[in-house]
Amino acid sequence: MSDRINIDLSREKRLGFPEAVFGLNKDVESLLDIIRVFRANGKSVLITRLQKEKFEKIDEKYPGEFYDELSGVCVVGEFPETSNNQSVGVISAGTTDAYVVNEVYYTLKYHGIKADRIHDIGISGIHRLLSRLDEIGKYQILIVIAGFEGALPTVIGGLLPQPLIAVPTSIGYGVAQNGHVALNAMLTSCANGISVVNIDNGYGAAMAAFRILHAFNGIKQNNDNRITG
Amino acid sequence: MSDRINIDLSREKRLGFPEAVFGLNKDVESLLDIIRVFRANGKSVLITRLQKEKFEKIDEKYPGEFYDELSGVCVVGEFPETSNNQSVGVISAGTTDAYVVNEVYYTLKYHGIKADRIHDIGISGIHRLLSRLDEIGKYQILIVIAGFEGALPTVIGGLLPQPLIAVPTSIGYGVAQNGHVALNAMLTSCANGISVVNIDNGYGAAMAAFRILHAFNGIKQNNDNRITG
Amino acid sequence: MSDRINIDLSREKRLGFPEAVFGLNKDVESLLDIIRVFRANGKSVLITRLQKEKFEKIDEKYPGEFYDELSGVCVVGEFPETSNNQSVGVISAGTTDAYVVNEVYYTLKYHGIKADRIHDIGISGIHRLLSRLDEIGKYQILIVIAGFEGALPTVIGGLLPQPLIAVPTSIGYGVAQNGHVALNAMLTSCANGISVVNIDNGYGAAMAAFRILHAFNGIKQNNDNRITG
Amino acid sequence: MSDRINIDLSREKRLGFPEAVFGLNKDVESLLDIIRVFRANGKSVLITRLQKEKFEKIDEKYPGEFYDELSGVCVVGEFPETSNNQSVGVISAGTTDAYVVNEVYYTLKYHGIKADRIHDIGISGIHRLLSRLDEIGKYQILIVIAGFEGALPTVIGGLLPQPLIAVPTSIGYGVAQNGHVALNAMLTSCANGISVVNIDNGYGAAMAAFRILHAFNGIKQNNDNRITG
Amino acid sequence: MSDRINIDLSREKRLGFPEAVFGLNKDVESLLDIIRVFRANGKSVLITRLQKEKFEKIDEKYPGEFYDELSGVCVVGEFPETSNNQSVGVISAGTTDAYVVNEVYYTLKYHGIKADRIHDIGISGIHRLLSRLDEIGKYQILIVIAGFEGALPTVIGGLLPQPLIAVPTSIGYGVAQNGHVALNAMLTSCANGISVVNIDNGYGAAMAAFRILHAFNGIKQNNDNRITG
Amino acid sequence: MSDRINIDLSREKRLGFPEAVFGLNKDVESLLDIIRVFRANGKSVLITRLQKEKFEKIDEKYPGEFYDELSGVCVVGEFPETSNNQSVGVISAGTTDAYVVNEVYYTLKYHGIKADRIHDIGISGIHRLLSRLDEIGKYQILIVIAGFEGALPTVIGGLLPQPLIAVPTSIGYGVAQNGHVALNAMLTSCANGISVVNIDNGYGAAMAAFRILHAFNGIKQNNDNRITG
Amino acid sequence: MSDRINIDLSREKRLGFPEAVFGLNKDVESLLDIIRVFRANGKSVLITRLQKEKFEKIDEKYPGEFYDELSGVCVVGEFPETSNNQSVGVISAGTTDAYVVNEVYYTLKYHGIKADRIHDIGISGIHRLLSRLDEIGKYQILIVIAGFEGALPTVIGGLLPQPLIAVPTSIGYGVAQNGHVALNAMLTSCANGISVVNIDNGYGAAMAAFRILHAFNGIKQNNDNRITG
Amino acid sequence: MSDRINIDLSREKRLGFPEAVFGLNKDVESLLDIIRVFRANGKSVLITRLQKEKFEKIDEKYPGEFYDELSGVCVVGEFPETSNNQSVGVISAGTTDAYVVNEVYYTLKYHGIKADRIHDIGISGIHRLLSRLDEIGKYQILIVIAGFEGALPTVIGGLLPQPLIAVPTSIGYGVAQNGHVALNAMLTSCANGISVVNIDNGYGAAMAAFRILHAFNGIKQNNDNRITG
Repeated sequence: MSDRINIDLSREKRLGFPEAVFGLNKDVESLLDIIRVFRANGKSVLITRLQKEKFEKIDEKYPGEFYDELSGVCVVGEFPETSNNQSVGVISAGTTDAYVVNEVYYTLKYHGIKADRIHDIGISGIHRLLSRLDEIGKYQILIVIAGFEGALPTVIGGLLPQPLIAVPTSIGYGVAQNGHVALNAMLTSCANGISVVNIDNGYGAAMAAFRILHAFNGIKQNNDNRITG
Repeated sequence: MSDRINIDLSREKRLGFPEAVFGLNKDVESLLDIIRVFRANGKSVLITRLQKEKFEKIDEKYPGEFYDELSGVCVVGEFPETSNNQSVGVISAGTTDAYVVNEVYYTLKYHGIKADRIHDIGISGIHRLLSRLDEIGKYQILIVIAGFEGALPTVIGGLLPQPLIAVPTSIGYGVAQNGHVALNAMLTSCANGISVVNIDNGYGAAMAAFRILHAFNGIKQNNDNRITG
Repeated sequence: MSDRINIDLSREKRLGFPEAVFGLNKDVESLLDIIRVFRANGKSVLITRLQKEKFEKIDEKYPGEFYDELSGVCVVGEFPETSNNQSVGVISAGTTDAYVVNEVYYTLKYHGIKADRIHDIGISGIHRLLSRLDEIGKYQILIVIAGFEGALPTVIGGLLPQPLIAVPTSIGYGVAQNGHVALNAMLTSCANGISVVNIDNGYGAAMAAFRILHAFNGIKQNNDNRITG
Repeated sequence: MSDRINIDLSREKRLGFPEAVFGLNKDVESLLDIIRVFRANGKSVLITRLQKEKFEKIDEKYPGEFYDELSGVCVVGEFPETSNNQSVGVISAGTTDAYVVNEVYYTLKYHGIKADRIHDIGISGIHRLLSRLDEIGKYQILIVIAGFEGALPTVIGGLLPQPLIAVPTSIGYGVAQNGHVALNAMLTSCANGISVVNIDNGYGAAMAAFRILHAFNGIKQNNDNRITG
Repeated sequence: MSDRINIDLSREKRLGFPEAVFGLNKDVESLLDIIRVFRANGKSVLITRLQKEKFEKIDEKYPGEFYDELSGVCVVGEFPETSNNQSVGVISAGTTDAYVVNEVYYTLKYHGIKADRIHDIGISGIHRLLSRLDEIGKYQILIVIAGFEGALPTVIGGLLPQPLIAVPTSIGYGVAQNGHVALNAMLTSCANGISVVNIDNGYGAAMAAFRILHAFNGIKQNNDNRITG
Repeated sequence: MSDRINIDLSREKRLGFPEAVFGLNKDVESLLDIIRVFRANGKSVLITRLQKEKFEKIDEKYPGEFYDELSGVCVVGEFPETSNNQSVGVISAGTTDAYVVNEVYYTLKYHGIKADRIHDIGISGIHRLLSRLDEIGKYQILIVIAGFEGALPTVIGGLLPQPLIAVPTSIGYGVAQNGHVALNAMLTSCANGISVVNIDNGYGAAMAAFRILHAFNGIKQNNDNRITG
Repeated sequence: MSDRINIDLSREKRLGFPEAVFGLNKDVESLLDIIRVFRANGKSVLITRLQKEKFEKIDEKYPGEFYDELSGVCVVGEFPETSNNQSVGVISAGTTDAYVVNEVYYTLKYHGIKADRIHDIGISGIHRLLSRLDEIGKYQILIVIAGFEGALPTVIGGLLPQPLIAVPTSIGYGVAQNGHVALNAMLTSCANGISVVNIDNGYGAAMAAFRILHAFNGIKQNNDNRITG
Repeated sequence: MSDRINIDLSREKRLGFPEAVFGLNKDVESLLDIIRVFRANGKSVLITRLQKEKFEKIDEKYPGEFYDELSGVCVVGEFPETSNNQSVGVISAGTTDAYVVNEVYYTLKYHGIKADRIHDIGISGIHRLLSRLDEIGKYQILIVIAGFEGALPTVIGGLLPQPLIAVPTSIGYGVAQNGHVALNAMLTSCANGISVVNIDNGYGAAMAAFRILHAFNGIKQNNDNRITG
């Protein structure tokens, strides 16, 4: 194994979930090293932001693994069963936000959490939201994704009481370039109790939902050797 | 008259409206010089952002003029009659945006335009807006004012077809400090055809409405000596 | 149809104009899905910011549609007749702003509004503007487009009384990179009553003009089912 | 009642919690109007960011209400009983972050939620945290507050599995002025599943915790008239 | 003399002008030390940005010195004769820019350069400029001062051929706050050959003019001991 | 000729120099149109920031024109004689700043001004500057170019009395990316009378020098038809 | 003792220096609590950024402690002997940087390190530096302090080989406001091996020097109970 | 030799280390000129940030030189012996920070300094750090490298007493893009005495370590001709 890699194998014991691999800046060789360690420990691996050309090289060694090109999520190994008594609504403002929707969705699926995707109900045509409010109201947790002016979490947060995690996307142009407007709009939302993750951070939003479901819906954990490694 | 002052007296001929006075950084002596010129030409004067202590000094010389402490709007002289066939809805998201609402309202009034103020219908409780949609739909022009995440113009712009001028306010804290988030959210609104003015620029929004009403509702103008001064 | 797409088909009823398609970040498959829905409803589609390589793939299925490579505007279907009693002057400061000029022009044309283009009359040679002032003064609405220091709207706004919508472009370098200087210069213009849209947002400026002409020049609309969808 | 005020009285029905009052920019007259409406409806009122001089004027009319000078939290009326089966750990990095700690603490208390405050365990002396890890590990939800480089949530989030809401404070100088560094550090934390609220937004963090406890610990709600107002 | 002070007494030999004193952040004691050194060397002193309360304390020791409250310029000692064969036009866009106009004017006067002030000819009423073009065209150097969108230097630079030094001021609000928009607009001016100094830096603009006049109009200098001090 | 082009042919009469062509964003067709107009009027054309692939297409129609690949300066037509009694020192801090050095140099040459280039004397090895101070002191005007921390103009401005125009370059990385640090360092220089142009704006610096030499060294001009065009 | 205070009493064991107290945002009561703990442990206390009015209240309880009003440094208790075999040169560009010079100087003195202060040798008059180069070359470590364009560390770092810690100050105006230009100029210095601390962070620079002297000049330390607290 | 090159050959005399070559923006021809000068003087050359395609062209002329593709460090000539009595720990938070780790490592090696690399011990799994604390505590100097939220230097700086130079990397996305969050977090670290270099500036960090070791561990130097060149 490359000496540049030092996997936090005790994370699942401490936190209830394994370390995930941020694929964007890692070279294929490092990724293969990491996969080898996970597989040797009998675990499946979640890789996020994996570019297609890197996926194809990994696929030569680990054929048949899951890959979603839109989001870049790759899972080497199996998805677990999804539990039935917990569900997350993954809602987006526009068609082009789907790459983040999928990062959330497949991260939840990798951790065994049931989720549904509701696309393209942004507030410039608010009836698209209002007409589905009862449906949306049934999820335990809402993850709301928007680019441009990022107002959808505010409208939903003013209408529905669930935990709501807002994800700004980098979709937009001009002053919206890179997602900072959506991020800041979500942080300053006049709807109360919304919390926010980094721009395009679908993985982080999914894990914030995981922490809630893990703590309140009874997934087991083992904290014994918390910092011994 | 101070040589620091050079009033654009031909503006009304060119544009249909006289020069207004931005009171914030002017000293009382300059303001009195300016008022004297306007009054000598038989005109009332609109001063914006006038601090109370400066108003009080002006009031000693020109007692009885209009002053709205909340917005800092001062009018030395008379308001004209407001015309009946044109009206502007001035709508705000929150109670604390009222200083901008009033700057819009009194600027319109100074130019003879009828307007109504609708306060505090921000989208964290969207029923406050939806229940008044028919009422709001009757105005010829909408001026929509919001601080924090500035989402109200987007929601209204997606529901109603009128010309809509959005005004960001500097109300907010943290990343919202100074109104840049509201401004940028309005500029990147996914609702189409919204145009925007500077942060807290109630005067500018009122004048954008004036230009529309002036061009389309038949107020006379005289362009003859446009650049002769 | 892809479940990532949820077209706001009632927008035309509510607002008088159909949803347009922001082509920049959408993949060809989504675009074809969207076109299919519009065509199935008997409507032409306006796509903005469409890259040439994506246009060419669409062109295989819908040959003969309109495409302006400079702006990326694509119209699948017919342009309507342009009405004679309304006109917009689309004015730019420099030759290189033409991509935004065209986005404005073809958006107006798609909505049946007559417009003329006046290129390259920026204020470093102000006689180019002054010599055409009478001609420019005849339009009902002015859309003024500039990059770099963005001063043209201010000069025109001080000379002419019409509604004036300013569009900053991303043309420039050094501190002007990305158009923020032009945007901010327009927002802080000392000429009164100018309103502004996002950087490069020709579509938005055209729609702001549409809202005015729609409200004041008598285009019919039908608001009955505003939020029922 | 002032026409500038339009209280969202149905919020409690929709969301399970009443509207709170952001006191910072409101004048005393508006605040007294708002209190009167709440009291007339038999409810206590939570006011945040209330300056001392404004509190003292309110105190003349409503003597005996609760006021915490450090955070500016004011409650006119009674605190409810706090429930025993839910608890929140409110943890801060430095002594000077206490104004946000208290905004969280009293907001939770106003909503009947039990919380404890753990001050000044920032990571420059990490043993202060490590030695209390078991104690901190017992709370259902963690709210972690830090200024300067804002690293405390990352360290805790890597050691403990609970839902963790991070609050940046505006404590710092130089590049840390206004809290943007702490905010951004929390948004880019390499510890997974942390969600973030606006700078100094103790109220928002408390309400994010409320949403979780409300959804998962069984507090009753009534969504019947969600958008009828 | 305080050991915190180390006056560059050879500057006049090297550069043709003595060191000036930036008064803003210096305490009265340091200022008095500095004045003492200059006076002991038989020279007058130029102090810029001197607050009134500090001036008054200095005035107790050095009664009768020159002080312009608007700009904060103070001269302890005599102004020299102004030469007749060189002149600078100091032009401003608005009345409120006068504090910078005066910093330029008195700095030039302190160095013996003849200048005239032309106030308040900003481009929202461009005839105010056009009607005085011949007058302005007679100065050897133009210093053009503007806040808000800062467009005046661009218009003048496109009409007149002289060396033009642009000075942005911090007058403005919203996005114009602190003068960055005016600065950036001047830096990206489409009029060629304009050079720019820091926001509000009237002193710097005057010295840039001094360097030109010094080099080309024949003021003597002595470079002998350039770096020996 | 394309209607997108509107050349300011009277600029030379007004300002003493013809319009230059900013080549960066213009397409080849527009450039050829522009060249045709200039050549038809018997003039050579200066094009800046011309990419090599566009140059090669122009070269097919106008073979033999001058092109400097490093800076992208292209001159179609002849350079004039350079006058002997005026000279500019063009000084850079580092080897990689040479692209801006050349833009200055060839712009001056196109306008008949003699200049010398002095490369790579940045202040991390200050003897490289000090040993050449007498040589540098002989130029009438200094143009000083630097990226990274941009300190060279400050050091030279403190040692030599000539007019000094500072040009920041976009050379650097990390916080220096895009040249803003160098720009701001030059604007806040503690050496007096330095003026500054936009990042990488070698053309602008050359034209600022041209204005000085034009005004003081007696190049003829004709202002008669200044704004008639 | 207030429960808001949790002093890191083992820091001296771990790091060789005790915790210092950042006085800026702490109230007097907290400060007195902290002093009491230190004094009860037989130690002197270093408080930085202590405002005069807060010092005066502390002085009532602890009369005779050291206070430097310029920097706000306060020491309750004794300064140690300064060692003779280690010395730091504390060098500043301008008179107004002295508040940071003193924060460095008194922090070093509190830790027993000998230092000298060399004021006002900024590079606009570079002979002031060059003439003292031998003197400056004798210090073991250099701490170089500058505001505005922050170029002094670059010049010294190119001439002398010692460890050099650069401190930007917030002295400046316009684009230099708050010290970001000086900070960024130091970070991008073309002189190699300079390291930087936060704006105005004299304390941090002194401690960086302490770490070096502590590691290399043999001050004893005891790491036994590093993380037991 | 190209006249664009002016190598500071006396740097080694003044500072103890030769000039290094920043390869990023230099063309191959300039690089070969520079190498020739160094080799003609009998010295090896350190080139940083050298792109692979440029390396390959250099390799044709100077085959066998050292090149590390990950960091872009190239050494033409020999590495010196590394001294045994000095050592630097080069520590990184994540696998993807290795390009900076290597720039530090090979720069130290080029200067004869012994170093070790410790990868991927970021604080989201803090046991990875705590379990190696004794090992890390043995180095004379620590260089700590991190992207994203950049918290690792703060944690180490609170636990260990050595000189600590922090290097932010540009690894991250969203608000972390380009490394500014990591940089600012390090500058505002609550751990005392940390100093910082520019984003990705591994070379600078290594040279800051060199200055310390050079001054305190007895490497010879010769300052005689310091500024004669």
